[in-house]
Amino acid sequence: MSTLTVELAHHSYPIHVGPGLLSQPALLAPHIGEGGALVVTNQIVADLYLKSLRSSLGAVKHACVILPDGEEHKNLATLNALFDALVSKRFGRDATILALGGGVIGDMAGFAAACYQRGIEYVQLPTTLLAQVDSSVGGKTAVNHPAGKNMIGAFHQPTAVIADTNTLATLSDRELRCGLAEVIKYGLIRDAEFFSWLEANVEALLARDWQALTEAIVRSCRNKADVVAGDERERGERVLLNLGHTFAHAIETGLGHGQWLHGEAVAAGMHMAADLSARLGMVRQDVVARIRTLLSRVGLPVLAPASLDTKTMRALMSVDKKVKAGKLRLILLKSLGNAVVADEFSESALEATLDTCRQIA
Amino acid sequence: MSTLTVELAHHSYPIHVGPGLLSQPALLAPHIGEGGALVVTNQIVADLYLKSLRSSLGAVKHACVILPDGEEHKNLATLNALFDALVSKRFGRDATILALGGGVIGDMAGFAAACYQRGIEYVQLPTTLLAQVDSSVGGKTAVNHPAGKNMIGAFHQPTAVIADTNTLATLSDRELRCGLAEVIKYGLIRDAEFFSWLEANVEALLARDWQALTEAIVRSCRNKADVVAGDERERGERVLLNLGHTFAHAIETGLGHGQWLHGEAVAAGMHMAADLSARLGMVRQDVVARIRTLLSRVGLPVLAPASLDTKTMRALMSVDKKVKAGKLRLILLKSLGNAVVADEFSESALEATLDTCRQIA
Repeated sequence: MSTLTVELAHHSYPIHVGPGLLSQPALLAPHIGEGGALVVTNQIVADLYLKSLRSSLGAVKHACVILPDGEEHKNLATLNALFDALVSKRFGRDATILALGGGVIGDMAGFAAACYQRGIEYVQLPTTLLAQVDSSVGGKTAVNHPAGKNMIGAFHQPTAVIADTNTLATLSDRELRCGLAEVIKYGLIRDAEFFSWLEANVEALLARDWQALTEAIVRSCRNKADVVAGDERERGERVLLNLGHTFAHAIETGLGHGQWLHGEAVAAGMHMAADLSARLGMVRQDVVARIRTLLSRVGLPVLAPASLDTKTMRALMSVDKKVKAGKLRLILLKSLGNAVVADEFSESALEATLDTCRQIA
Repeated sequence: MSTLTVELAHHSYPIHVGPGLLSQPALLAPHIGEGGALVVTNQIVADLYLKSLRSSLGAVKHACVILPDGEEHKNLATLNALFDALVSKRFGRDATILALGGGVIGDMAGFAAACYQRGIEYVQLPTTLLAQVDSSVGGKTAVNHPAGKNMIGAFHQPTAVIADTNTLATLSDRELRCGLAEVIKYGLIRDAEFFSWLEANVEALLARDWQALTEAIVRSCRNKADVVAGDERERGERVLLNLGHTFAHAIETGLGHGQWLHGEAVAAGMHMAADLSARLGMVRQDVVARIRTLLSRVGLPVLAPASLDTKTMRALMSVDKKVKAGKLRLILLKSLGNAVVADEFSESALEATLDTCRQIA
């Protein structure tokens, strides 16, 4: 087991990464409040892992809520079902929520914890690669609004992240690829050496080589923990973690949540950000080519869907949390491993990227 | 104009109290973000004050949302209407919400600000006595759950509180009385001298003597600001501000939100807490009598409604944010001006209070 720490101003919390961690009661116990635990999960994950989690909980008072699976259910109505469960089971401020699942479960369970009785504790138990390397770390919680992804949420840090790498064995290939999109992101924004390592190890990762996956998770979490420690509330550097995400959110909202998976949209978005960076003279074309090649080797899309034309994409991008004083800000690349925030860029270059980086109908 | 400051660990904010403040553009301007303002109010308040607020906003980009009036609308559905307005008007993270109204508006607008894009700024513009002396100060925001009041919310501090005392002229007598319930609370929990001052000035307050009301507001806000500064997140002393509120929330939930006004339920609840304190030998009966007399002189109820029997009240009280390890905690009085948290008390004494302090059908 590897353990990293997210060092925040007011409290720190551990990220444990390793095989079989869900079956270790001693890892979980220190993080469960006197008031017991509400396990939040979905049907697919419940069938696979709920039993071992419950047996790790032993005699701890707990209840379970099984939510419908999928990004299209990440909304206020589903959140309300969590509040109903918390109230009806009489959970108090000293209860702990356990988020067992992928990013959708973690985001919703975390947001419910942020709001229930003005804030209770929660533990992230991520079961997808994407959640283990990204969404479970850093305290961003949210639900979607029909007009925009993650528009309603809170910064609310978990008390621990426990990533059981055994859960990756049951992940679909599609979800594995989505996780790798966010892994590649860390290479692009701040860790060129990691990007090279990924180029060298992509086959091992896709073959689910256990050591390679663990290495990728730990290096990703270390990058994320460093960024979050320096900027918990996204007032500075943390915004760089959104590389490709403005394009991605536009794709996800435009297609309807749940059509493309988040990691797929992020992959296309990162390539589009790189393409725009090259058009603006910020990076060389060979860097864009390396990015496109690695994403393609993983089997991820690098172009926006054919149905979303330039005008539609541009309009969707303007509903973004990074808009400031009415102005869109984008994360762009200065080089491999070096991302920057840009609020001055040529609209015609952006339009050229949106025109060019689109699949053919 | 009087100005107090709420001194918090990370930021401080002013409370301005005085006549005509809504018509002073210079007071408002420093607190509005680059992204403009969304004014949140209800129809009654809009008819009275929206015009002068909008003229104070001048050329600032802004939009208005008028919510239905009343506690029964303080729920997730109404909150969602606020998110719809924020998204459809393209407000970004740099927008500011202006909460123009009483406690219901302030709680909902503040909670929307806490969650929209994971947190934007807001300014409280309280127009009722209750909001000016209590709910607008301290950053507690929330909506109700059908099973419990304020069960879903956040701690999110405003950037300023601007209390225009001219708005009290249009308040109904019933709402004025409700505000005085929370004013009396400060006397009971931590300021015996203020309680005596209230006994001496109750007629002036009810006659809306401007100087007496201003004095009551400023002294209340100073008490609240001191408590909040010492304990922003209610981990200690702040819980004392909930004197009477566990009884009150049970009454409000039991009758259906909106039947009794919050201040009325709090008045009955404070008397019930005093009655229980006397039964437990913590205060003398003459203190209970003084409290009952002052509340009655104001015209506030001191007994729970006839329809809520002891068993019902007791069950409703167990859905309370102060429940810890399954155990109900109550705020009780050791003397006038000295409240304490009690988690050990005789259930039979509590039942006697619930039996006795109930109106006759």
